[in-house]
Amino acid sequence: VVESWSFLDTVESNFTPLVVIELAKGTKEETIEWFTKRIVDKKANGGAQLLVKPLVMENGVENIYLVGASHLRLLLGAETVGLVKECSDNSMRTFTYSSRKTFKDFADDNHNFLTMAECQYIIKHELENLRAKNEKMIPGYPQAKLYPGKSIVRRLLTSGILVQIFPLHDREELKKLRHRWYGRVKVGYQPLDDIRCYFGETIALYFGFLEYFTFALIPMAVIGIPYYVFAWEDYDKYVMFATFNLLWSTVILEVWKRICAILTYRWGTLLMKRQFEEPRPGFHGVLGINPVTGREEPVYSSLKRQLRIYLVSLPFVCLCLYFSLYVMMIYFDLEQWALDYHKENESNFSSLMLYVPSIIYAVVIEIMNRIYRYAAEFLTSWENHRLESSYQNHLILKVLVFNFLNCFASLFYIAFVLFDMKLLRQSLATLLITSQILNQFAESLLPYWLQKRYNRRMKKRMCSQKTDRDLSIAEQVNMEKEMGTYLGTFDDYLELFLQFGYVSLFSCVYPLAAVFAVLNNITEIYSDALKMCRVYKRPFAEPTANIGVWQLAFETMSVISVVTNCILIGMSPQVDALFPDSKMDLVLTVALVEHLLLAIKFIMAFVIPDKPRDIQMKLAKLEFESLEALKQQVRAFQMQL
Amino acid sequence: VVESWSFLDTVESNFTPLVVIELAKGTKEETIEWFTKRIVDKKANGGAQLLVKPLVMENGVENIYLVGASHLRLLLGAETVGLVKECSDNSMRTFTYSSRKTFKDFADDNHNFLTMAECQYIIKHELENLRAKNEKMIPGYPQAKLYPGKSIVRRLLTSGILVQIFPLHDREELKKLRHRWYGRVKVGYQPLDDIRCYFGETIALYFGFLEYFTFALIPMAVIGIPYYVFAWEDYDKYVMFATFNLLWSTVILEVWKRICAILTYRWGTLLMKRQFEEPRPGFHGVLGINPVTGREEPVYSSLKRQLRIYLVSLPFVCLCLYFSLYVMMIYFDLEQWALDYHKENESNFSSLMLYVPSIIYAVVIEIMNRIYRYAAEFLTSWENHRLESSYQNHLILKVLVFNFLNCFASLFYIAFVLFDMKLLRQSLATLLITSQILNQFAESLLPYWLQKRYNRRMKKRMCSQKTDRDLSIAEQVNMEKEMGTYLGTFDDYLELFLQFGYVSLFSCVYPLAAVFAVLNNITEIYSDALKMCRVYKRPFAEPTANIGVWQLAFETMSVISVVTNCILIGMSPQVDALFPDSKMDLVLTVALVEHLLLAIKFIMAFVIPDKPRDIQMKLAKLEFESLEALKQQVRAFQMQL
Repeated sequence: VVESWSFLDTVESNFTPLVVIELAKGTKEETIEWFTKRIVDKKANGGAQLLVKPLVMENGVENIYLVGASHLRLLLGAETVGLVKECSDNSMRTFTYSSRKTFKDFADDNHNFLTMAECQYIIKHELENLRAKNEKMIPGYPQAKLYPGKSIVRRLLTSGILVQIFPLHDREELKKLRHRWYGRVKVGYQPLDDIRCYFGETIALYFGFLEYFTFALIPMAVIGIPYYVFAWEDYDKYVMFATFNLLWSTVILEVWKRICAILTYRWGTLLMKRQFEEPRPGFHGVLGINPVTGREEPVYSSLKRQLRIYLVSLPFVCLCLYFSLYVMMIYFDLEQWALDYHKENESNFSSLMLYVPSIIYAVVIEIMNRIYRYAAEFLTSWENHRLESSYQNHLILKVLVFNFLNCFASLFYIAFVLFDMKLLRQSLATLLITSQILNQFAESLLPYWLQKRYNRRMKKRMCSQKTDRDLSIAEQVNMEKEMGTYLGTFDDYLELFLQFGYVSLFSCVYPLAAVFAVLNNITEIYSDALKMCRVYKRPFAEPTANIGVWQLAFETMSVISVVTNCILIGMSPQVDALFPDSKMDLVLTVALVEHLLLAIKFIMAFVIPDKPRDIQMKLAKLEFESLEALKQQVRAFQMQL
Repeated sequence: VVESWSFLDTVESNFTPLVVIELAKGTKEETIEWFTKRIVDKKANGGAQLLVKPLVMENGVENIYLVGASHLRLLLGAETVGLVKECSDNSMRTFTYSSRKTFKDFADDNHNFLTMAECQYIIKHELENLRAKNEKMIPGYPQAKLYPGKSIVRRLLTSGILVQIFPLHDREELKKLRHRWYGRVKVGYQPLDDIRCYFGETIALYFGFLEYFTFALIPMAVIGIPYYVFAWEDYDKYVMFATFNLLWSTVILEVWKRICAILTYRWGTLLMKRQFEEPRPGFHGVLGINPVTGREEPVYSSLKRQLRIYLVSLPFVCLCLYFSLYVMMIYFDLEQWALDYHKENESNFSSLMLYVPSIIYAVVIEIMNRIYRYAAEFLTSWENHRLESSYQNHLILKVLVFNFLNCFASLFYIAFVLFDMKLLRQSLATLLITSQILNQFAESLLPYWLQKRYNRRMKKRMCSQKTDRDLSIAEQVNMEKEMGTYLGTFDDYLELFLQFGYVSLFSCVYPLAAVFAVLNNITEIYSDALKMCRVYKRPFAEPTANIGVWQLAFETMSVISVVTNCILIGMSPQVDALFPDSKMDLVLTVALVEHLLLAIKFIMAFVIPDKPRDIQMKLAKLEFESLEALKQQVRAFQMQL
């Protein structure tokens, strides 16, 4: 095994392990030698110029390697990935090694200038950009083909030689973070900046959104409580509530964009340039020339992909939607059956039975959602999208459409076909509460409990009474490599999206929904935090400037909720009574109000600037400076003539 | 008068006049001397390094100066303004002097590499960026204050010392262009690339849009003709027509974005970087520090501006809207009176009288639109916006809202309050045709006739029988400086916007509207071309990548037209007859269809990509190259270490 140290590291006395590479057991010696050599090799030779150390386990098996890098290497890497850091004059600028002295807290001996998460992100980026030179295959594995420019790590992953790459937890820091985040029984904001330092921007932004959304729901919840307490059934009050809700939901989504801009400006990701997107690991095809880059890479016909999407995926999704509606009809049969049963033998038991169909249906919905999720992932990956972003968009679209119909179809049916407001309220409450409980359990508590049990067993096996802090690196790696992998914020956002639907679509018949949402979100913050800190491996930090397609999804939901609420109010007996002569006038009035509300919504979205004024100014200043610098260059050149 | 030639021009044997500067008569000698010195001075001394020649007139008065530049100077200027030109490998790239050899048609002795319009644009840019150094005022005019960094030309213009700056026509080229454009009686596309070369991108894009829009209307017109010929009154046919119209209008607006991308990619403006926006000439305030640039410049409190907008402009606009509605009510009184008169004494004259109120109203609308336009300009300029773009946005918003209400309020009233479809059709036809005739006359034919008369008188005065071609520079300048100034594409787009409203808002009651629109647009192309070539001074070229806010305006109009057409169809007796039992069902069905159509519209707008695939690829390629270049730089730097 190679243990060479590249020339950059002569000044480096101690090696800090940052990232763990786990190879498959029994990987051939020549493969390991070649791979580690490529990692430590000089940039000029096409290497990553990082540091590698094998981890010798008790049983003598050497399949785990620790990767680190010298301080200088990390700084150069920070420039490569385009990290944005704060300067001494409080402005945010793209970090370059040559201008390093102008950055806040920079000192040649300050190894904390880059956070550990940033260092790990840099190492991940460098490893993923380690590309094949003239190798035709991975040494020792002739079936694992390579071509010039192919990412070595991605090929190792897809051919199963590389089991996983993950960043190490920092036990000290994690303990501090846990304490600040949920250790104290104190009401307050989450330490978003600390979360961002430890877990990166994508996760911090999710927690920021979750917190913001919870705060934003509080006014709705507060206004909703008296409706329950005093059993207000007057529809003029409901009209007020619904109108407030509709405008409020527009405002909160617009304001979130501004808060998001403030957060990501502070974190530097708002200014980060988009990197050129490489093909996703799973993408396959015949070798050809990419017309954009001019490089050799797999090419897959766009027509074939379109055929797969429209002839297979689309019909499959439609089938699933049909199946979901079929299940819904079964639920209504059950509901009818329970009602009949209750009428025949009226008892405490039978009135409890009334809730059973809804609960069963809620559980079935959750199960169907999860199964469909796997199918959607399989199909989308089979569609063979070249870019990760296009894969994600197709996956999210598939999942959102199905989840929306699956969760809300029964409510739409009850509201607009059966016209049964009492049943609607009961169904809504049961669905909302059941799905929240199921989610909390399945997402956080169950994995936490499993993890805890596993940890206890591990410690026992190691026959030691050591606390976490005293664990050696080997023990720590051994523990962490068995932890679950956090698969990204998709499920968490989806949960919030559906919750937003429950709260806003039928808000005027069940004002208490917001109260439950707030309560759920408060516990959700804690259980998600627990999940991040205790259950999962540390995830790699992912820089991001916004919540992406979810913003659009939430906005679409709020447009749909304008329509549903207007119809619900129009159907109410009180509003009906206002137009005793002509039902026409009623419908026309409702339609007019709906169009006005929609127009107001769009105008508000247009008028409220997406970025606060001071952020706009700071961005303008940076743009001005770069334009000026360019002009200076041209001028200097002209003067030479 | 200074006639110095800067050192760049020693190789230049002949001076080509490009731009004319007209100073006020009796401008002080010292001012002229200072101004011309600044123009010819070296860049290093803060000059513009251009060439200036006084034009000696017959009467010996010297207040007109011709500005030119050496070939080298123009190439360097092309780099400064960020011109994008075609390379030898057919890709479009930002021109830089150092990479000049890679560009198509470049040769050191090819003075046609830059078009004359581009040269004039460069000179305008250089003149406008001629900034005060330490001058506290314009020499000779103590009341015309200057401060470091203030654009000299803008101050000269606002203080009236500089009367105008305009580019010279190229008589040869213009004649060729005229011939190709409208000289031949041949149906075909306009020579957009030639128009772009001569007049610049903004004007070429307007003519491109006009042509595209005319072609796009042809299907509507063709489908509309049989409705008139066979007097189809069946509403099921109208439903088909309206549905086709609604989807068609969405498609054409989306497809325009793609065509626009193709055109502007070919012209290079799609890739041009936005320049930093300087304050507009009319902007005034107390001297302060601009927080973005850190430069000294006038500052005006945003609060004051907001107060002016909301406390003065907004009420004024509302008042105008009210007045417009008041005039509309008078029109309805007149209409009633004409109808009564017709009933009392039925004759040919009285039936002709029926059209009189509409015609008068159409004329009044045109007059009101024009008066309001001046008021809006005055108010918006009084609001003292710092940037030209913000000024334009506020002006366009004011004008659009008023014009929309002024033109269409009576039609809305007839359709949705009076429910009189016959009157609606008659009104629509009269308004549309009258406004088209008025516009053609007021915009093109009248100025053309005036200009022709003036030219004849001028020539007579010069006592010469020369043709245009033989005119000396002095005579040409003298002729052109008296021509009208083209004020931009605003009025032309506004006319198209209102026409689009007439065609789409009530298309299902008057299918012939599209026919008139097509006929009008064909003559419009010719009269606008005539106007550009014969009536006005040559305008400065303005690079642009799209039609800007007008895209949004047209899209909004097409959303409104979905609503109006659905209501109109819902009100028709035939559709009414389909729901004999329940008017409720009718209204609900109409509302459902409307929502579906709107949803389809938004999904279509979302699904159709804004840029064709090959343009996307070319843009991706450029982005990839610039990212690669950056990476190479970083790598080269790392290897040095």
